[in-house]
Amino acid sequence: MRATTIYAAGDIRIEEVPDPVLSTGRDAIVRVVAACVCGSDLWNYRGVRPVKPGSRIGHEFVGVVEAVGDDVERVSVGDFVIAPFYDCDMTCINCRNGVSTSCLEHSWWGSRDHFGGFADGAQGEFVRVPHADGTLVKTPEYPTEALIPHLLTLSDVFGTGHHAALSGGVRAGSTVVVVGDGAVGLSAVLASQRLGAERIVLMSRHASRQDLGRVFGATDVIAERGDEGIAAAKELFDGIGPDAVLECVGTPASMDQAIATARPGGRVGFVGVPAEGNSVPVASLFGRNVGLHGGVAPVRNYIEELLPDVWNGVVEPGRVFDLTLPLDEVAEAYAAMNERRAIKVLLRP
Amino acid sequence: MRATTIYAAGDIRIEEVPDPVLSTGRDAIVRVVAACVCGSDLWNYRGVRPVKPGSRIGHEFVGVVEAVGDDVERVSVGDFVIAPFYDCDMTCINCRNGVSTSCLEHSWWGSRDHFGGFADGAQGEFVRVPHADGTLVKTPEYPTEALIPHLLTLSDVFGTGHHAALSGGVRAGSTVVVVGDGAVGLSAVLASQRLGAERIVLMSRHASRQDLGRVFGATDVIAERGDEGIAAAKELFDGIGPDAVLECVGTPASMDQAIATARPGGRVGFVGVPAEGNSVPVASLFGRNVGLHGGVAPVRNYIEELLPDVWNGVVEPGRVFDLTLPLDEVAEAYAAMNERRAIKVLLRP
Repeated sequence: MRATTIYAAGDIRIEEVPDPVLSTGRDAIVRVVAACVCGSDLWNYRGVRPVKPGSRIGHEFVGVVEAVGDDVERVSVGDFVIAPFYDCDMTCINCRNGVSTSCLEHSWWGSRDHFGGFADGAQGEFVRVPHADGTLVKTPEYPTEALIPHLLTLSDVFGTGHHAALSGGVRAGSTVVVVGDGAVGLSAVLASQRLGAERIVLMSRHASRQDLGRVFGATDVIAERGDEGIAAAKELFDGIGPDAVLECVGTPASMDQAIATARPGGRVGFVGVPAEGNSVPVASLFGRNVGLHGGVAPVRNYIEELLPDVWNGVVEPGRVFDLTLPLDEVAEAYAAMNERRAIKVLLRP
Repeated sequence: MRATTIYAAGDIRIEEVPDPVLSTGRDAIVRVVAACVCGSDLWNYRGVRPVKPGSRIGHEFVGVVEAVGDDVERVSVGDFVIAPFYDCDMTCINCRNGVSTSCLEHSWWGSRDHFGGFADGAQGEFVRVPHADGTLVKTPEYPTEALIPHLLTLSDVFGTGHHAALSGGVRAGSTVVVVGDGAVGLSAVLASQRLGAERIVLMSRHASRQDLGRVFGATDVIAERGDEGIAAAKELFDGIGPDAVLECVGTPASMDQAIATARPGGRVGFVGVPAEGNSVPVASLFGRNVGLHGGVAPVRNYIEELLPDVWNGVVEPGRVFDLTLPLDEVAEAYAAMNERRAIKVLLRP
């Protein structure tokens, strides 16, 4: 089959690789119908994270079940399924606690051998899913073409935005500031709107992202950065700041900004993958009782909750995809996102 | 009047100082019936925090209202009152949000001039309270002698332990580990028990503190420290750790231990005053979704909630006082706590 590989910073290729095979009885082979490029993939692409030449890459996909092992009970050949950005069993204590990213049998797509062989990267034609019953969620029926991008966001970005909002304690009536206008930040706006937030401020200086933010429910946009941005955001909320700040970047600067913006007793919900050396002085939280909650989003635990609103068109999170390319043009997909010509690129194998 | 002053590390004195006087209409003069020494006072005593020679010190007291300004409505001369470890108005937006430690008219006892003059330190005979209606809470009637130590803990340690528990998300059925066996850590055990925690583990290697911890509701005690202590605590909870870890020390080591001990998706409730340089790598929270909540405890917001159980003897938080001294022997009170001969010392002017 064809799959995406990365050889070095900036060196993304499509190559022929072995087809995945069933091996454990609990696994399934999924034919990828749509995949995409994540902001975190760019960390490898930019050389921020070291790359092992020839590694597979990609972790978001939806597709059709092509084959299942003998012990698989919850999905069948022909089902259209959504996969989270990781593999999990949904039966261990951490999965039951709502933290499937800490599954005791957790694995990452494309990273290494797990539970019976290689778990493929998602930017390819097929993926072997080690724990099919836990990992995959089937849709009510085969979706329309128009629905596919929206469903694909349940694999990562919409679930991650939802996690940011829950981590920030967002609920009906909350006041919210979102730091980060990438696909995750925009998804956090939409998730906050869906949860009933009263006022949602997006920090953004890019017109197209501001526009989508407003479509997703942002009531205000602040273009200023740094101390000016913090002051402008506080000013909108009685001078003290909002209940929740959703940190969707991961840099030390964005985390500092998020903490400084929250009101006393408020919360920072963070989902930005922390950059090397990103640490928080405890004193910056202590004096004003700002809580810090978040992490790698357990999106698998959210799929059943979010799917109905996506399926029924109540929310349209797939609007974050502003470019669609065939899988063969994956190198251009990375380049477009890296150069910020696209918010998020959808790939069709 | 007589009041405690500090001149340098280890140099605690009793001196004659001017009597406080009413000045704003909103203030009250309280005659101190009982005060005490706080673990955070020891930071000055040990020279960890710089000391301005002759500074007043102490921030926990209960007493009797001796005089009130013309605009005071909620307390009267002769009332027995509890004061939190700070002054606040309870009408500003932060007070209404439950974060009276961030009151827009906040002041610390003994620190400097606030709202009409000096707000005295609490380890003395009298204190001027700038916002009497906001700060002071009167008891149902004049308490018995036996109740006074318990009421005094509402000024700081019991409210701070309660804040640790709330910050850690403790509720009925929670599993809890408490890091720190000082008066605050022990109070956090009691607060967790009061909130219905199912299992409470106290990290302690001091027999007298272990004993009081068990009286307060600890179901288990772990004497090991460092990695061994973390492993022992995780082992008690399915190998993954407890729902909540209450960090009641403030050092980098205790914070690291608390984060490492919490289960994936769990929370660290922290109230230990952060030592210089105490910072948390975001990555230590991110991968396992460990939340970090807490800060300087808004105990004023808790007094009405906690007072009935204290007044009726449902909880006896004043058992943390294992030494009572006259105010004149305040220097010995500091020495006893500094040398860990006492958990917490009560002072009677």
